[in-house]
Amino acid sequence: MKVNEMIRKIRLPDAPGKRARLHRLLYGAGPGNGTLLVLPLDQGLEHGPTDFFPNPAAGDTDFQLRLAVEGRFSAIALGIGLAEKYLGPYAGRVPLILKLNGKTNIPDDGDAVSPLIAGVEDAVRLGADAVGYTLYVGSPRQDEELRQYARVRADCERLGMPIVMWAYPRGRAVDAKGGKGTVYAIDYAARVAEELGADVVKLHEPQEPNAACPEPYRSLREDLPARLRRVVRSAGRTLVMFSGGARDDDAAVLDKARLYMEAGATGLVFGRNLWQRPFEEALALTRRIHELCARHAR
Amino acid sequence: MKVNEMIRKIRLPDAPGKRARLHRLLYGAGPGNGTLLVLPLDQGLEHGPTDFFPNPAAGDTDFQLRLAVEGRFSAIALGIGLAEKYLGPYAGRVPLILKLNGKTNIPDDGDAVSPLIAGVEDAVRLGADAVGYTLYVGSPRQDEELRQYARVRADCERLGMPIVMWAYPRGRAVDAKGGKGTVYAIDYAARVAEELGADVVKLHEPQEPNAACPEPYRSLREDLPARLRRVVRSAGRTLVMFSGGARDDDAAVLDKARLYMEAGATGLVFGRNLWQRPFEEALALTRRIHELCARHAR
Amino acid sequence: MKVNEMIRKIRLPDAPGKRARLHRLLYGAGPGNGTLLVLPLDQGLEHGPTDFFPNPAAGDTDFQLRLAVEGRFSAIALGIGLAEKYLGPYAGRVPLILKLNGKTNIPDDGDAVSPLIAGVEDAVRLGADAVGYTLYVGSPRQDEELRQYARVRADCERLGMPIVMWAYPRGRAVDAKGGKGTVYAIDYAARVAEELGADVVKLHEPQEPNAACPEPYRSLREDLPARLRRVVRSAGRTLVMFSGGARDDDAAVLDKARLYMEAGATGLVFGRNLWQRPFEEALALTRRIHELCARHAR
Amino acid sequence: MKVNEMIRKIRLPDAPGKRARLHRLLYGAGPGNGTLLVLPLDQGLEHGPTDFFPNPAAGDTDFQLRLAVEGRFSAIALGIGLAEKYLGPYAGRVPLILKLNGKTNIPDDGDAVSPLIAGVEDAVRLGADAVGYTLYVGSPRQDEELRQYARVRADCERLGMPIVMWAYPRGRAVDAKGGKGTVYAIDYAARVAEELGADVVKLHEPQEPNAACPEPYRSLREDLPARLRRVVRSAGRTLVMFSGGARDDDAAVLDKARLYMEAGATGLVFGRNLWQRPFEEALALTRRIHELCARHAR
Amino acid sequence: MKVNEMIRKIRLPDAPGKRARLHRLLYGAGPGNGTLLVLPLDQGLEHGPTDFFPNPAAGDTDFQLRLAVEGRFSAIALGIGLAEKYLGPYAGRVPLILKLNGKTNIPDDGDAVSPLIAGVEDAVRLGADAVGYTLYVGSPRQDEELRQYARVRADCERLGMPIVMWAYPRGRAVDAKGGKGTVYAIDYAARVAEELGADVVKLHEPQEPNAACPEPYRSLREDLPARLRRVVRSAGRTLVMFSGGARDDDAAVLDKARLYMEAGATGLVFGRNLWQRPFEEALALTRRIHELCARHAR
Repeated sequence: MKVNEMIRKIRLPDAPGKRARLHRLLYGAGPGNGTLLVLPLDQGLEHGPTDFFPNPAAGDTDFQLRLAVEGRFSAIALGIGLAEKYLGPYAGRVPLILKLNGKTNIPDDGDAVSPLIAGVEDAVRLGADAVGYTLYVGSPRQDEELRQYARVRADCERLGMPIVMWAYPRGRAVDAKGGKGTVYAIDYAARVAEELGADVVKLHEPQEPNAACPEPYRSLREDLPARLRRVVRSAGRTLVMFSGGARDDDAAVLDKARLYMEAGATGLVFGRNLWQRPFEEALALTRRIHELCARHAR
Repeated sequence: MKVNEMIRKIRLPDAPGKRARLHRLLYGAGPGNGTLLVLPLDQGLEHGPTDFFPNPAAGDTDFQLRLAVEGRFSAIALGIGLAEKYLGPYAGRVPLILKLNGKTNIPDDGDAVSPLIAGVEDAVRLGADAVGYTLYVGSPRQDEELRQYARVRADCERLGMPIVMWAYPRGRAVDAKGGKGTVYAIDYAARVAEELGADVVKLHEPQEPNAACPEPYRSLREDLPARLRRVVRSAGRTLVMFSGGARDDDAAVLDKARLYMEAGATGLVFGRNLWQRPFEEALALTRRIHELCARHAR
Repeated sequence: MKVNEMIRKIRLPDAPGKRARLHRLLYGAGPGNGTLLVLPLDQGLEHGPTDFFPNPAAGDTDFQLRLAVEGRFSAIALGIGLAEKYLGPYAGRVPLILKLNGKTNIPDDGDAVSPLIAGVEDAVRLGADAVGYTLYVGSPRQDEELRQYARVRADCERLGMPIVMWAYPRGRAVDAKGGKGTVYAIDYAARVAEELGADVVKLHEPQEPNAACPEPYRSLREDLPARLRRVVRSAGRTLVMFSGGARDDDAAVLDKARLYMEAGATGLVFGRNLWQRPFEEALALTRRIHELCARHAR
Repeated sequence: MKVNEMIRKIRLPDAPGKRARLHRLLYGAGPGNGTLLVLPLDQGLEHGPTDFFPNPAAGDTDFQLRLAVEGRFSAIALGIGLAEKYLGPYAGRVPLILKLNGKTNIPDDGDAVSPLIAGVEDAVRLGADAVGYTLYVGSPRQDEELRQYARVRADCERLGMPIVMWAYPRGRAVDAKGGKGTVYAIDYAARVAEELGADVVKLHEPQEPNAACPEPYRSLREDLPARLRRVVRSAGRTLVMFSGGARDDDAAVLDKARLYMEAGATGLVFGRNLWQRPFEEALALTRRIHELCARHAR
Repeated sequence: MKVNEMIRKIRLPDAPGKRARLHRLLYGAGPGNGTLLVLPLDQGLEHGPTDFFPNPAAGDTDFQLRLAVEGRFSAIALGIGLAEKYLGPYAGRVPLILKLNGKTNIPDDGDAVSPLIAGVEDAVRLGADAVGYTLYVGSPRQDEELRQYARVRADCERLGMPIVMWAYPRGRAVDAKGGKGTVYAIDYAARVAEELGADVVKLHEPQEPNAACPEPYRSLREDLPARLRRVVRSAGRTLVMFSGGARDDDAAVLDKARLYMEAGATGLVFGRNLWQRPFEEALALTRRIHELCARHAR
């Protein structure tokens, strides 16, 4: 499969509910041309208030909701507590991805699992257009992770709800094989998302392999664009969104975004890179990202 | 409450799922200005193929789906069988109101009840933005009707699904009190919809009272606009859509539509008046109805 | 839609289980060219042993199973009792349509309902490729019928099981509108099957309208081929099988079969016309019907 | 199928639990040669104490249980109340058929239905080797009957429990077609038992047809042996037991028994004919019936 | 039991659903002579994208589905995610074995368990003809494994679904007794599959015993054909398929296949050996394997 084919790879699911909801995310909101621009806000649970220090205003979830509406995002990703308290006046004005599981980062991640905090019926009740689910790929407790995921998947099937998977390599065994950021780990995560039936997968930028990675990855010599294309390909028909990670300056953000879209990603998940900026700056940067998306219709 | 207030009366529910879905119907699709333009197709079950005789092409449900998409309707109303077989390629391109109950008109309507054929979870699974429910107001078997409705309403509550009620006075007792079309019967139906928690109600045009109607309706001397305003008022915060009934000529259809919107209706349900015409004529008339709706932003 | 289009109308459902099972019926067994040839055996319950008088050997269900296998039928339709006791050695050698409901003909049909005797999970357990369901269209007790059907449909959805509907106009109200055999009644039944989500519908040959039929049917002047095409069209994407009814001579059977296939039917349901003949005669006639089906690939 | 073949027709079901329990009835208890000799005691509920007038001792269920054990019956058929109170010391010494449904004969039988009084799990708990179920074939309320039966059948399937069906033509519609005792009615009942998946069916002796019977039965001219063979054949693989009905003298009883077994029945159900006699007489007659059964190994 | 008897050992289960589905796999698809040729694709989850490096085209699941259809395989084995996304157009054209459990290989296998990701009802819904289940025989966590398996088995019983067991010796305790590949470990696995009610078992080629194996295996001196016959015998009436493992050259693959079939295996599971080749080469090799199967009708 060539990059060009990959780039046009969107195949909506046959199931009408999943299809209608994904259609809404891809064509009815956000850039509206088959690309995705998602504003995530799960960092308060995952990292604590730490991430709001650079921009205390962002500690009030209204900030992100306003940004999501005014910045015309494809969706905002929120956990159940924030959705219940803040979504009200914004319901219907920006699609919701209800993040179903999560945890704090206080214990270390050696045996990471991400427990379910809300269910697919909550997502339906709140009018969400997808659920978000974190899977710690390769965790020593992967059996618990996968069994929990299986129940979510079955509910999504029954209710026509798309699944956006946060596919994160994590845990002691991943560390022993080169760490969570290598192309080995990310590429495996991309394939796992596809094997498990995710509709969309959120991945981190794949780093170079290192000496601890298994072959054939250890010997792989590819630049970042090639690595990005590789993981997009490994995700198969699961649509890929890359996330921006920690805050960077405007040019770096736009550069990353461009690289990701050129590599065949369907979309972008930028959180801290946007809401750690003052509102107007965040909005301005969002507009430039929209311009980029406009050049990559899928 | 004055007409002007009535006209601006839209208050979206607080529950975020209902809110998001109604928002979509009112502002995200169709005229997009708080009015509703709904294309119904339940006549094949309710009346048999009879209604397709004037325009055989309309017997193929693809006709109505294309009309709904190209005519930018707020929603199409379909039963489960048609939705399952025909919605696929249109999913996400026009909102769906899944009609949950129905029956044939072969037995007479003396003891009419409308049995449930699909459930609210089917609506969720198919990505519907509302369910449609026929209530035969005043039927001798109203206890069965209301109990069945109660289960639907509870599911809608749990899943954040708006209810569009086809509130139809029907049955032997209604006939004995002047028939199903009088302002007495329709006005009662409007209030029942509000009492039972419908979010939107579809009503027929209220006719003059007759000698069989109970007082004070029997003595009521109001012209059609006044009767229309009366039933809109009786529906309270339940949004009213009037339906067009059997086919009429273009001028008559537009006249009715104008009367309904001026009376404070939120929307219009035109089925046979549109799809009993050839496609291009139906589309042309739809455009003129859009122009009318544009003048009645809610 | 022209006849030619109708004839090619097979659109397998998107749901993979329904699709796989229908594919098996249409292409993996029987004529194998997209047509259906079904051997029904529910007469013993519906009519009693009466139908076995002309050929007592047919009272032993082994007769029909051997005929179904040796005659390469697309499927045999059996109720749970016969399937449990006789299918064993034939399982996998001819597809099974498990008939889920039925009744005796001892009471009259004024208020006919057909109670559920087995469920969709029984069909799965027995390895059936479809369920058969009788719906008495227009019965005064249609509400019970439709509610019972709704549960069957939901299970079929959940388990990927196709539905073959025996859509039979029946009951006092049907009699008052011209009887169960008129084009009015059959045409309505065809549409009801489509509205209710049947995948395949078994219909009787539509007779001329009579004075008791409602308009526009009462005035309809169409020959049999036109009436057959009409009901095929009214069934939309629901595949139509016509049944042969009571026994006729070979030439008459083949004539009917040809008429049905030329009118756009997907298949034929011949029971008494085959198994009321001695085995070898039945087999010989089956072969001639195969030849006919071979000329009508869908 | 010839009589000889019919007579050897026993085919135990494949399901191991049903097979083990039927094997016990056919070969482990009673005559032990594939024939069945069943002692029924449901008359106290069905007819009231009337039937105990000729032999008041039989009003104490201990009488029948002792007779069943000492007379080496294949099984005793009891309702839940008698089984709970009297079975204790006899449990394991004679197989139990737990009769699941029943009713009084105080109202007339025009709309007869036989409600469930115990369930299949009761039968398991009591160690029964089969359940007994009365089906009123052709009752105007057959839909209720069949739905109730369907649940029993499903439980029997799940729990490996054989079903002995008391297949009784009954109700206004049966009366209108010649009454409950004609060969028309009994023959239909035999087939219904087979269609519904009964393992064993208890039938009454089929009487000559009369003018009210439908054709082809009305014109049937067959002697009793021929009629008996006919209904055995209509029951297919369902094993037939004929019941003796009201009390007769010894010679008449033995005559009936011989006729039944020669006609291909698997067994006999004699209640009043035995327990309306003093214990020792009953036992003596039982022994002569055993001798008869010994000549008809299946 | 002699080899010849073993080779003819196919006894289809009595339960009609299991029987019908296995009949389809054995006689309705693939070689069609009672042998099995299965194309597995669970390596993407079990090993990551590593296995697609030799033939990147195989990373697109369409490759394997086309190969399965054009190569006339008995079945393709897929997990739920791939089945949902890719099966659609192929449904009904090649039987599906839905693989129910799986895991990544990132953590080590000392305490291996394979969590359930989909259920038997998913398999029914997708129209699968069997489920695939990995059991890590001898894992320190075998209690969890077996309990999970027990639920799957019960559902298979209820729904008539055959079980294909991937019986893999695995875990610290297996390593301590000579490792996962010895005849000791494989022979035990074969018997476990039979004991647990698998219909078909997929085994690896049994290697020579080593000094860590328990007696009497430690002292066993058998060549490979003898070891293969031994494990086929240990599997009793569970049909055995041997899998080819990592890629080999054509001659070696055919050699292995011949050895396996001569030893009494019912079938072959070749994955990487086929889809790590370019499509046409894979198809050509498949054809030669078909020729081999043709010589070993069961």
